[in-house]
Amino acid sequence: MFDSQKKSPMIVAFAGAGTVGGGALQLLRTHANIIAERCGRQVVVGAVAVRDVEKARSRLSDEDAALLVPDWHTAATLPEAEVVVELMGGETDAKECIKTALNHGKAVVTANKALLAEHGDEIFAAARDAGKAVAFEAAVAGCIPIIKTLREALAGDDVHEITGIINGTCNYILSAMSREGLSFDDALNNAQSLGYAEADPGLDIDGVDAAHKIALIARLAFNAHPSMNEFPIFGLRNFDLRDIHYAEQLGFCVKLLAQARRLNGGVELSVQPTLVAESHPLAAIHGATNAVLARSVFAGETMYSGAGAGGNPTAVAVVADIADIARGNGALFMPENGNPRQLIPASDFCAPHYLRLRVIDRPGVLASIASALAEQNISIEAIHQNESAPGQEVDIMMLLHETARGKINAAAANIEKQDSVVGSIVIIPIRQQDKQ
Amino acid sequence: MFDSQKKSPMIVAFAGAGTVGGGALQLLRTHANIIAERCGRQVVVGAVAVRDVEKARSRLSDEDAALLVPDWHTAATLPEAEVVVELMGGETDAKECIKTALNHGKAVVTANKALLAEHGDEIFAAARDAGKAVAFEAAVAGCIPIIKTLREALAGDDVHEITGIINGTCNYILSAMSREGLSFDDALNNAQSLGYAEADPGLDIDGVDAAHKIALIARLAFNAHPSMNEFPIFGLRNFDLRDIHYAEQLGFCVKLLAQARRLNGGVELSVQPTLVAESHPLAAIHGATNAVLARSVFAGETMYSGAGAGGNPTAVAVVADIADIARGNGALFMPENGNPRQLIPASDFCAPHYLRLRVIDRPGVLASIASALAEQNISIEAIHQNESAPGQEVDIMMLLHETARGKINAAAANIEKQDSVVGSIVIIPIRQQDKQ
Repeated sequence: MFDSQKKSPMIVAFAGAGTVGGGALQLLRTHANIIAERCGRQVVVGAVAVRDVEKARSRLSDEDAALLVPDWHTAATLPEAEVVVELMGGETDAKECIKTALNHGKAVVTANKALLAEHGDEIFAAARDAGKAVAFEAAVAGCIPIIKTLREALAGDDVHEITGIINGTCNYILSAMSREGLSFDDALNNAQSLGYAEADPGLDIDGVDAAHKIALIARLAFNAHPSMNEFPIFGLRNFDLRDIHYAEQLGFCVKLLAQARRLNGGVELSVQPTLVAESHPLAAIHGATNAVLARSVFAGETMYSGAGAGGNPTAVAVVADIADIARGNGALFMPENGNPRQLIPASDFCAPHYLRLRVIDRPGVLASIASALAEQNISIEAIHQNESAPGQEVDIMMLLHETARGKINAAAANIEKQDSVVGSIVIIPIRQQDKQ
Repeated sequence: MFDSQKKSPMIVAFAGAGTVGGGALQLLRTHANIIAERCGRQVVVGAVAVRDVEKARSRLSDEDAALLVPDWHTAATLPEAEVVVELMGGETDAKECIKTALNHGKAVVTANKALLAEHGDEIFAAARDAGKAVAFEAAVAGCIPIIKTLREALAGDDVHEITGIINGTCNYILSAMSREGLSFDDALNNAQSLGYAEADPGLDIDGVDAAHKIALIARLAFNAHPSMNEFPIFGLRNFDLRDIHYAEQLGFCVKLLAQARRLNGGVELSVQPTLVAESHPLAAIHGATNAVLARSVFAGETMYSGAGAGGNPTAVAVVADIADIARGNGALFMPENGNPRQLIPASDFCAPHYLRLRVIDRPGVLASIASALAEQNISIEAIHQNESAPGQEVDIMMLLHETARGKINAAAANIEKQDSVVGSIVIIPIRQQDKQ
């Protein structure tokens, strides 16, 4: 550490230099001295591969622009490079780039959550075969060091649950709906015009982006190797403003939670809108901010929050991984604990739940709903109904004690068949304040 | 990492095995396999030194009890040990223990914030001379990995401010005053009976414990080497419940904030009760929980929260440091950046402020107070006065725009001389919601 001059510099090759890559290049150059001091080695960029060299030139410093090459293969195979930073996005080329780099004996840093979540088995196996790390702090929750924390800070503890608000677009939309009373569509339009949502927002609002991230966390923390079709992924698309208002009347706010829990030897994994008690720390996370809460046996509850997206914050995570590799941090490897843990079926997920039904207000409606719940042994904690006139449509909100989702779905299917019930039942799990 | 069997185990000697040491020993034993996997080496305890062997025996596992020795010197010099864990507390013996261990070529892990804050120059110099790390994650904010985060996760970024709620006792007391309307004394008594405060609570409620921790953070992040008498340390002793109520009426809560800011080449360092805007993330930290907020150029605002004290949470930080040493993490060294940064004088600290004055309500009082403020060019944002009858005592609350503390103190001294002003003026800085 005291002799950063004595060790040879570590050469890094970039494949991709968009907002994240550009930010990382700027950090490496601006803070070269402090990074050298903190790593015990200088870190020097050796090549920057981009698809469109001319377009990139204007956005980079002269020094970085001089390193531009038009193909990722040059970066992935650069003889003097010890590390390849894959920030191209997409899956096909990015996967080839990472595997090529590993085959050439280089460690890899990537922010590509979709690739790692969808093809993790293949990529982490290639990393083990090569004896090189694939570091991915930047793939999950931007600058929040949740991967490092799970891997290192909580290394001696027994982490059993990780719950996160890990899609900034959805949290921005929910905050805007709650604060400004906007419909989902209007809030999404606002998010798009402010740059918080892509023109094609599907990956965000359908929960897939959060699912990619929580799947990576579950692999690291619990040795689960989930496919995207193996666990419930409910996004936010068309979320009804009424449920936000009703939730607030009941002391909750709505958050899109991604959750991984180790339970009975299996792993419970989900992405879904959730009613979060107003007193819960995750309820205080507003706008595009991300937060991850970990629960472990010795440390208890710890929470980490910050900017979950954006070029500059994510660049900090990229540089942190580069610095770790420069230091020879062996914790960067994805652990391999024999057989992966199996996922628990979604029908077994237990939680208190919120139901919202639209019914025609006439005698006996509530009794028949209650008996359909009783048939499944579901116990009701509270029922709320707004004022209405007989014969008119009215919303009924019910809070259910902890119940397996499968039973609720079965009861809901029966209730929806009743003549007085209009449309589908909204079913949302509830997250209470955790016991401290 | 894949060959933890091939490397020789790393031997660790404990000096001290109270609640933190006992927790760490339990973690190392219970999670031996997972720690070995995450470190690439087994970690094995070689000796456990305690003052009272018989008393310790009943609290430890049979395996650990078999390693008990009655003197720290045996632990600090244990030939096969690579790491000595100092958890004795106190200063004299602890310092000797750490220096002896370093002289014998061992790395050190300690939770001793008072020692490192008061004798940091000496200890970190000894560590550099020995070429061995003194790791101290457990000294600051319990299980919250703020040291690792500053050192590694934000390694490439430019951190310019760290603000923390880093004394759980004070935060517990403030929460109890606010929620239950207790006086300071009653809240302190509650904290003591629940084990959140020591029988002698001075270090906590006078702000010294928080000052030790923020001084260590300032050393790591900003290369400041502060003595405890060089920066303002205001604790919570006899904090007036009225100011909590008035603050809440104005949209604030009261927190004991420890703050380190890099400004104009110097460092602004303080521990003081502060009015925090209700919408600020630190306002949501209740009870004995700790939280640290970092601001940096690229990542923006990140926040880390969790249990700031207690044997088990702190043990997680001790084991994290042990694991880092096992991995050979070079970032553990305290950086040495030439000349330490100087502290900014407290009179130069700029912030919006809250003033509370008790006055006898008669014509002209407010005018003479306002003119005393105007003399110092202090601009008033708002004035609040509860209803009163002429001639009676009444509290006046004023919110001041951002002003240097020295000017406010000068104005306050003049105001306190006025006949209509009763007692001293309460002066509290304000922390607004940060711009995102």
